[in-house]
Amino acid sequence: MDTYRQIVLASRPRGVPTSENFRLETGPIPVTAHGQILLRTQYLSLDPYMRGRMNEAKSYAAPVSIGIVMEGEVVAEVLESKHPDYRGGELVQGRIGWRTHAAVEPTGLTRVEANGNPVTTVLGVLGMPGFTAYSGMKVIGRPKPGETVVVAAASGPVGSLVGQLAQLAGARAVGIAGGPKKCAYVRDELKFDAVIDHHSDGMPKALANACPDGIDVYFENVGGPIWQAVLPLLNRYARIPMCGLIAEYNGGRPAEQESLASTMLTAVRRSLLMQGFINTDFAVDHYDDFKRDLSPLVASGRIRYREHIVEGLENAPEAFIGLFFGGNFGKLLVKVS
Amino acid sequence: MDTYRQIVLASRPRGVPTSENFRLETGPIPVTAHGQILLRTQYLSLDPYMRGRMNEAKSYAAPVSIGIVMEGEVVAEVLESKHPDYRGGELVQGRIGWRTHAAVEPTGLTRVEANGNPVTTVLGVLGMPGFTAYSGMKVIGRPKPGETVVVAAASGPVGSLVGQLAQLAGARAVGIAGGPKKCAYVRDELKFDAVIDHHSDGMPKALANACPDGIDVYFENVGGPIWQAVLPLLNRYARIPMCGLIAEYNGGRPAEQESLASTMLTAVRRSLLMQGFINTDFAVDHYDDFKRDLSPLVASGRIRYREHIVEGLENAPEAFIGLFFGGNFGKLLVKVS
Repeated sequence: MDTYRQIVLASRPRGVPTSENFRLETGPIPVTAHGQILLRTQYLSLDPYMRGRMNEAKSYAAPVSIGIVMEGEVVAEVLESKHPDYRGGELVQGRIGWRTHAAVEPTGLTRVEANGNPVTTVLGVLGMPGFTAYSGMKVIGRPKPGETVVVAAASGPVGSLVGQLAQLAGARAVGIAGGPKKCAYVRDELKFDAVIDHHSDGMPKALANACPDGIDVYFENVGGPIWQAVLPLLNRYARIPMCGLIAEYNGGRPAEQESLASTMLTAVRRSLLMQGFINTDFAVDHYDDFKRDLSPLVASGRIRYREHIVEGLENAPEAFIGLFFGGNFGKLLVKVS
Repeated sequence: MDTYRQIVLASRPRGVPTSENFRLETGPIPVTAHGQILLRTQYLSLDPYMRGRMNEAKSYAAPVSIGIVMEGEVVAEVLESKHPDYRGGELVQGRIGWRTHAAVEPTGLTRVEANGNPVTTVLGVLGMPGFTAYSGMKVIGRPKPGETVVVAAASGPVGSLVGQLAQLAGARAVGIAGGPKKCAYVRDELKFDAVIDHHSDGMPKALANACPDGIDVYFENVGGPIWQAVLPLLNRYARIPMCGLIAEYNGGRPAEQESLASTMLTAVRRSLLMQGFINTDFAVDHYDDFKRDLSPLVASGRIRYREHIVEGLENAPEAFIGLFFGGNFGKLLVKVS
């Protein structure tokens, strides 16, 4: 029998989050008021951006308050509807948070449109991470045939799609991933043109060897030492879509703090385009194209993806913390019910 | 009577250039071969980018070799022509270098088109610095009515035009300049909406006060501490054309080296567009528009400019070195003959 469970922000992390920053709470299943629907979460998406929501400071969105349920997108089933537009059994997606149930007005929810693919894809390759890769490449990266595109976290949901989209555009895809298993996946299953293990010594040299004609697009979703290896290889007029900096979200790294000047000087000298974005920036203009273009490619297997599914809401904090240590192998999801 | 003089690169500077890095040489006036024209330099333009040419490393252009004449654009008079397309007395401009005369094939030269303005303007407000401001604002900055545009070196040839173009687009212009004289000029003659003295204590706070609605466009031509003051004020979707970093050209500043992470994180969180460029990047698409749009505005006095003219080629090294200490007040030119 279902019981209501949720995970709230217990305290704000300093540096990398720990399990003490989260608290599991239980209670009665919410009661649905008129105009609301009762949802039971099937899958919760865990993503690096959530680290920003745990800080007190405003990022591009308001922080989660102490004692309030952690923010996150889910796929959920409508258990009960007191809203004329919804019926029991329908699947919806939206920012319901880290909880098993919710009684909400359906504003901001959308019906799941997996277009023949598993429902989990709407949280990954056909959802927010996929659109981040798609829109960043389409609007900012703009790879051309024969160019070299580099992306880190290449086995992850964003990086894996960036490389495959690069190849669809006729460019070379060079991936950076952590450890032999992930590297083998990127090379053998995703079929990137080259892959480099960032755990190995000599990563900068290996990257240079993998990019004999330099780098034309670097899709920045990591930051830190990889940027330092990329910077000297960037070609004139290189484009750098910047959607995330997981290496920087927890602060610190004082021993590795790099000078800003070399980045700025290179930007001027090589006419670099560096553009930060979040996926919603380009949604109005490009989201429909994304769903239309990618759904059949995913369904046919032409675009590949990998999911890392953790069982049970209570395991969400540990799985989330693992994101910052490369613990996930593919899009990280929690199977909640 | 004329004698030939030129200034060559005597040695490569470490840090800020000194007079020992330059050498004045004299010799016979060059003899004109068939197909060549003999030029006598009237004005030599001195610009910060020349510092990059003094390094051994390749920037966007090849370095000047030791013992070879320093590179630079000039306005020159045709003294003698053995080329069918040129006649004595015509004025041309081109990258002739720091010298009084040159016998050259006219490839790469253009006839001076000042459109009713003084010939010196083709090296400044209606030349390379002006086009840097114009194209950076038109292509990257794209100020909208009511937005706030910030530029440093606001009394200089690029900065002064950036602010005036911002105002023509209906935006607020906030300038940063060094010392009371330059600030008075920016405020009273250029009519910027606000001006801040970067020599004064509390510059970051003064900048914040001058930008109550944040910053939408920061035209980066300086780098260093000013970027640190600008960064927290940048609005979402701010645009940062980056055409130069005079504060960084001489290296050093170890005590002030700032972390790269804060810049990258801000770029992601606020969807910043940072784009390096040099003026030639946009010349094909926009140079004709620039000359057509700006020439009458300069002629009518609607756009103002200021020149700092030093007499005598032998004084070019000292004047050039002064660029890195704010010694110039307006576009720096050398009157050579």
